[in-house]
Amino acid sequence: MLSVVLSRVPDGAPTPEDFDLVESACPALAEGEVRIAVRSLSLDPYVRSSLRPSEVPPGRAIGEVVESCCPEVEAGQLVLAETGWRSSAVVAGSSVTPVSVPPGVPSSAALGALGMPGLTAYAAHVRHLRPRFGATVVIGSATGGVGSVAGQLARISGARVVGIVGSSEKASLATGRLGYDVAVRRGGGLADELRAACPDGIDAYLHLGDQATLDVVMEQLAVGARVSLCGLMDQYNGAAPTRLRAGAVLAARAEVHGLVVYDHADLAPEHVQQVGALISSGELVALEDRYAGLDLAPLAFARMMSGRNVGKVVVDVS
Amino acid sequence: MLSVVLSRVPDGAPTPEDFDLVESACPALAEGEVRIAVRSLSLDPYVRSSLRPSEVPPGRAIGEVVESCCPEVEAGQLVLAETGWRSSAVVAGSSVTPVSVPPGVPSSAALGALGMPGLTAYAAHVRHLRPRFGATVVIGSATGGVGSVAGQLARISGARVVGIVGSSEKASLATGRLGYDVAVRRGGGLADELRAACPDGIDAYLHLGDQATLDVVMEQLAVGARVSLCGLMDQYNGAAPTRLRAGAVLAARAEVHGLVVYDHADLAPEHVQQVGALISSGELVALEDRYAGLDLAPLAFARMMSGRNVGKVVVDVS
Repeated sequence: MLSVVLSRVPDGAPTPEDFDLVESACPALAEGEVRIAVRSLSLDPYVRSSLRPSEVPPGRAIGEVVESCCPEVEAGQLVLAETGWRSSAVVAGSSVTPVSVPPGVPSSAALGALGMPGLTAYAAHVRHLRPRFGATVVIGSATGGVGSVAGQLARISGARVVGIVGSSEKASLATGRLGYDVAVRRGGGLADELRAACPDGIDAYLHLGDQATLDVVMEQLAVGARVSLCGLMDQYNGAAPTRLRAGAVLAARAEVHGLVVYDHADLAPEHVQQVGALISSGELVALEDRYAGLDLAPLAFARMMSGRNVGKVVVDVS
Repeated sequence: MLSVVLSRVPDGAPTPEDFDLVESACPALAEGEVRIAVRSLSLDPYVRSSLRPSEVPPGRAIGEVVESCCPEVEAGQLVLAETGWRSSAVVAGSSVTPVSVPPGVPSSAALGALGMPGLTAYAAHVRHLRPRFGATVVIGSATGGVGSVAGQLARISGARVVGIVGSSEKASLATGRLGYDVAVRRGGGLADELRAACPDGIDAYLHLGDQATLDVVMEQLAVGARVSLCGLMDQYNGAAPTRLRAGAVLAARAEVHGLVVYDHADLAPEHVQQVGALISSGELVALEDRYAGLDLAPLAFARMMSGRNVGKVVVDVS
């Protein structure tokens, strides 16, 4: 079987050269274990802080059970499992869950819009941002795995949605397929672009970005604004700790939340049901950035960690 | 009549020398106006950012109506009015409100525990901190006008209350008359003292203090903690903007709120009723730091802005 291992600890944002592809023998199954042939591997930003030298990075995948020593899991089943960046993995049968997506929705959605990134967006939307009809919602990283779902949920709830993007291609994608009202560019002109896009201030902000973006947004909050801190992308890459100006929180009487998806597991059934129906009906686009082959996982990860992905990053392994 | 005016703009924390006491003629009343003889003047930190050269600082006071050209206000009434730092003031009759405190409670409580500082504490308690029985609540500036009420409300609600103080005298006051479970000292040893006082982390924090205190508290939040940013004392005095580490908010999945008392005016009747009853019954101490004479207002203000007051600062004017 093939695995990706970390060959050297990244200095700042990871590069493909920080990883090696290695071939190794398949371990035998112990009692209660199952063997998974990985089909689609999910790449996620949180992995950046879990990288250890010579180890296989963690990762959730959809795969087929090809061998089972666990009475509860049958060979042939399609399951979600924590496999790491491998073509094949042996895991405890009790740790896998059957893939469940609505009819007509690709199974890889269980890693994206119907998986952890989608649940993150759903929890931010219903528990932190709570936009009212006509409210102005700003989404950092508007076209990413989390942001693309959060932005669409805000739009479907009747909000005016402004997406922050890093390129003109992403701006077109945001206002096109994803239905954002406006897309604004990260960088030196952000304050002016955002002020023009949000003349009455920002009612809700999902932070998935860097310090400079956060600083600009915090100064343009409307009174009573809600902020959900979800991804501290530059911090994952080793930049200085992200900080919020307390005076801006006070001036806006803002409500700031820290979001960790594991706290919102109780929302998962509702999330899959609601977002699944929206994908089925075509109202919500499950945006995916797909790469063919495990050997491309390092490249895909490096692109994601420097903000060059569009949508949920998935590696097709077999 | 006597007034205090700003003689020079303070450099950092104000000093008594930044003010002058001046004598001036009493203006005549116009239609709709009333003349107030000030009895008790309230000094508040927000005034620091309103100081203008040669002007009388703003301030709420309790005073007697001594002359009225307003049919709705009778001479002899005791009212709350925005008089500024004066012995006597002419104000619109429509802007004054009758003082209302429960029987047996001194009227000056309407400037403190039953006034704006008390409402600030009450709003922080019921809307932001919301401590459950047994929760650990930390109050910055535990013995100040806002903190002393907030800490007692938390205690009365069944929380374990830890007060941050600046001196050993205040520590005794906090754990004595105010009923805090523990008092800890601001400064270099705060992190260790706080860790010992809050072994299970901090569930709720009312921030009335400086950057260094905020930094220490934010690293010791329990999961699900609630933080209310209420007073940014060092910032009022011109220090660098207070900032919050976003990673600490995220790690604790904290909920951070900015508190501006004017947003919570709807709570005022409930606040006066509840806190008034607690003062009458002796369960809550309305702590006051009283100064005799308008000439002491600059000294009292300087002491308050450097954290040397205990309780609500009131100047007895007549």
